[in-house]
Amino acid sequence: MNQPKIITLLSDFGWQDSYVGAMKGAIARINPTLNILDLTHDIPPQDLTAARFCLLNTYRYFPDGTVHVAVVDPGVGSRRRAIAVQIAAGTLVGPDNGIFSGILSETPAFAAVELTNPDYWRIPSPSNTFHGRDIFAPVGAHLASGTPLAELGDAIAPGTLVQLPFPALKPTATGLEGCIQYCDRFGNLIANIPAAAVAGKSWFLSAGERTFVGVKTYNDVAKGESLALVGSHGWVEIAVNGGSARSQLNLDCGAVVCLRVTG
Amino acid sequence: MNQPKIITLLSDFGWQDSYVGAMKGAIARINPTLNILDLTHDIPPQDLTAARFCLLNTYRYFPDGTVHVAVVDPGVGSRRRAIAVQIAAGTLVGPDNGIFSGILSETPAFAAVELTNPDYWRIPSPSNTFHGRDIFAPVGAHLASGTPLAELGDAIAPGTLVQLPFPALKPTATGLEGCIQYCDRFGNLIANIPAAAVAGKSWFLSAGERTFVGVKTYNDVAKGESLALVGSHGWVEIAVNGGSARSQLNLDCGAVVCLRVTG
Amino acid sequence: MNQPKIITLLSDFGWQDSYVGAMKGAIARINPTLNILDLTHDIPPQDLTAARFCLLNTYRYFPDGTVHVAVVDPGVGSRRRAIAVQIAAGTLVGPDNGIFSGILSETPAFAAVELTNPDYWRIPSPSNTFHGRDIFAPVGAHLASGTPLAELGDAIAPGTLVQLPFPALKPTATGLEGCIQYCDRFGNLIANIPAAAVAGKSWFLSAGERTFVGVKTYNDVAKGESLALVGSHGWVEIAVNGGSARSQLNLDCGAVVCLRVTG
Repeated sequence: MNQPKIITLLSDFGWQDSYVGAMKGAIARINPTLNILDLTHDIPPQDLTAARFCLLNTYRYFPDGTVHVAVVDPGVGSRRRAIAVQIAAGTLVGPDNGIFSGILSETPAFAAVELTNPDYWRIPSPSNTFHGRDIFAPVGAHLASGTPLAELGDAIAPGTLVQLPFPALKPTATGLEGCIQYCDRFGNLIANIPAAAVAGKSWFLSAGERTFVGVKTYNDVAKGESLALVGSHGWVEIAVNGGSARSQLNLDCGAVVCLRVTG
Repeated sequence: MNQPKIITLLSDFGWQDSYVGAMKGAIARINPTLNILDLTHDIPPQDLTAARFCLLNTYRYFPDGTVHVAVVDPGVGSRRRAIAVQIAAGTLVGPDNGIFSGILSETPAFAAVELTNPDYWRIPSPSNTFHGRDIFAPVGAHLASGTPLAELGDAIAPGTLVQLPFPALKPTATGLEGCIQYCDRFGNLIANIPAAAVAGKSWFLSAGERTFVGVKTYNDVAKGESLALVGSHGWVEIAVNGGSARSQLNLDCGAVVCLRVTG
Repeated sequence: MNQPKIITLLSDFGWQDSYVGAMKGAIARINPTLNILDLTHDIPPQDLTAARFCLLNTYRYFPDGTVHVAVVDPGVGSRRRAIAVQIAAGTLVGPDNGIFSGILSETPAFAAVELTNPDYWRIPSPSNTFHGRDIFAPVGAHLASGTPLAELGDAIAPGTLVQLPFPALKPTATGLEGCIQYCDRFGNLIANIPAAAVAGKSWFLSAGERTFVGVKTYNDVAKGESLALVGSHGWVEIAVNGGSARSQLNLDCGAVVCLRVTG
C-alpha cells in the first residue's frame, strides 16, 4: 500500500513552454510522492482525434489504479463539463469533449462526476484558459492520493458523456472500408481496422489507386518498399520499410482505405 | 520529513541530444530519491528573456522547498558568476545572467552565494562549456538533499545579482504602452501588461493598426477571430480562437502594444 | 538498499506519439517505484550512430546499478538478437545491433544474455514491431527490481555482440584525420577525436578549405566567429559562438576533419 501512485499527463501544450511544468508543480504541491509520467504533450493543437487515439492505445499498459489526466481542451472556459470517470483500470480526468471516448468504447465507465467541488481545485477561482493547471492536475493529484471520486463533485450518468464522432467501418463484398485515423512520427499511417479483421488471413489494403500486401514485419519487404501490417497498437497500418509512408505515398489522416481479405 | 524533494530543470538544451540526460544522471548519482521534473528544455538557444518568462510563470506552482536549476548560459566559461539564491519558495541555481530576475522582481532574495566550493561540483575541474552537468545540477542535488546554502561558496550581496534589461510599462493618457514579451506554442502573444491593469474594466489592446477587444475566454469570439484576454499566466495576451495569433497577425516578441481602458 | 533504482530510456520514437508512454506504463506496471529518466527520444529515426554517441556520452554520469534501455531497432521482427549486457556501471538492454558498441569500446562486458525467457516479457507473444514495450522495457524493469541477468535467457559470448562500423582515426604527419560523428541541437559539429589528442597543446582543426583554431571556450572568439574546442562530452568539436556551425559552415555528420598539432 506504500507503492507510489502513477499519474499520467497527455496534452497539446507542447514541450516548449512551461505549461506542462506548471501542471507538474500543481501536482507535486499536493503530493510530491506521486510518480508523474508523460504520455505525450505533442498532440497537434486541439486535435481530439489524435488525443483519443493516444489515450486508447496507452492506458492498458499502466498499472491498475493509474490516474490519467488528459488536457486537449478547445472549449476551456465555455460550458463544457470538467469530469472524472472511474474505469476498471483506473481513473480518467479531463474535459468532457470525447477525449476519453476511445477508452470508453472498450471498457465501461463505472461512475462519473462533474468536477464541481472547488475544494479540490488549485484555487477557488480558476483561470478561464488553463483548467489543466487549476482543475485537472490538482483533481488528478487528489485522486491518486486517495480522495474518493464522489468527493470531487456531482455524479453524472456515464451515458451522458460526450462521444467524439468517429468514422465507422463499412463492410464490403470482400472486406472492410475504413480510414486512416492517426499518423505517427515515422510516417506510419494507422487505419481504424483492428487486428482481429486480418488475423490468420491473407490480406491486402488499398488506398486510392495503390495496394499494399499485408505482411508480418517491416523487414518482410525490401528497404524503401511500402507494405501493410498489424502495428504494435493492434491496428492495420501502411508503412515503408526504413522510410515514411506519409511523405512517400502522399497520404494522411482521413484517407479512405479498403481491406480485402483473400482467405 | 521523508517526502521526496523536488528539483526542476529548465534549459535551452533541447530534447534531442543527451545533455538533459547527463544532467539527470549527475543528479541521480548524488541522490536517486530526488523527484526531477522538467519545466522545459526548448527555450530558444540563448534566449534569456524567454527563460526569465518561463521561470517567473512556473515557480509559484511548486511546493515550498523546491530547487529550480536553470541553464541558459551564453557566458559559460567566461567570468560570469555561478550562483544559488534563496527565496521564500525555495532555491534558484544557475548562471548570474538575469535568468532569475523575473522571479526576483516579485519575491526577495534572502541570501545568495557564488558557487565557488568545488566539493559540491561533479568534479573539481568542470568542463568549460557544460556547467549545467558539472556545477548546477550537482549543486541543485546537494541543496535538495539538505546541504545549507552557505556551504556552497562565498556569500554575495543579492543587490549585485545581474538584472536582465526589461522594457518598462509607460503610462499613456488612456492606459499603458508595453510590448509582447513571449510567444507560446499556440501562437498566443503575451504582453508585459499584468492582469491587475485590466481587472474589472472594459479594455482594448492595439498593436500596429489593429485593435483587439478584451474578453474573458477564447470562446467569447467566433472561431478564427482574434481577441485579447488575460492569459492563465496572469498577463494580457493577444490570441486567435482556434488559431495562431503570431502567424495570422504577423506579430512577434518585442512588438509594441497599447492598452486602452474605457471604464 | 531501499534507494529507488534508476532506469533510463533512449529511443528514436520521438515525443509526439504515445510509444514512450507505453514503455513507461510497461515499466510502472512491473515496478511503480522505479525512477524512469529519459536520455532522449529524438534520435533521428533508425540512426544507430547517433544513438551510440548519446549512450556513450551519458551512461557514465548515472549511479552504479542503473539500467539503460535503448531502442533504435530497424531490425525489429527480424532475426537480430535481443540482449542484456552487464557492465561495471550497470546493465544495458536493447537490440544487438551495435547500439551499445560505443559504451563497450571503453568498458568491458562482464556477461551477456539473449532475452529468450518470455517470463520476463510483457506478454508471451510480443508484437512484431515494438519490442521496446513488449520485451526491452519489461526486462529492464525486472533487472532494476533485482532479477539476475542469467534468468533472462541464454548466456552469449560478449565477443559475439554486434559492433557498429565506426570510422577509425588515421595518424597523419602533423596530427590525425577523423570525421564529424554527431551534430547537436546548437549546430555544434562533434568530431571523433578525443580530448587527449589535444590536451596541453596548440592545435588547429580543418574541414574542407577552412581551418579553425583550437580554443578553451566559446567566448574566446567574437560573437558569430567559428572556433574549435574540446566539448563537454570530451571530443573535439567545431562551433560558432552564439550560432550554428552546421548551418553557417555547411558541414554535417561524416565530413572529414584534420587535426594539426603544433606543440
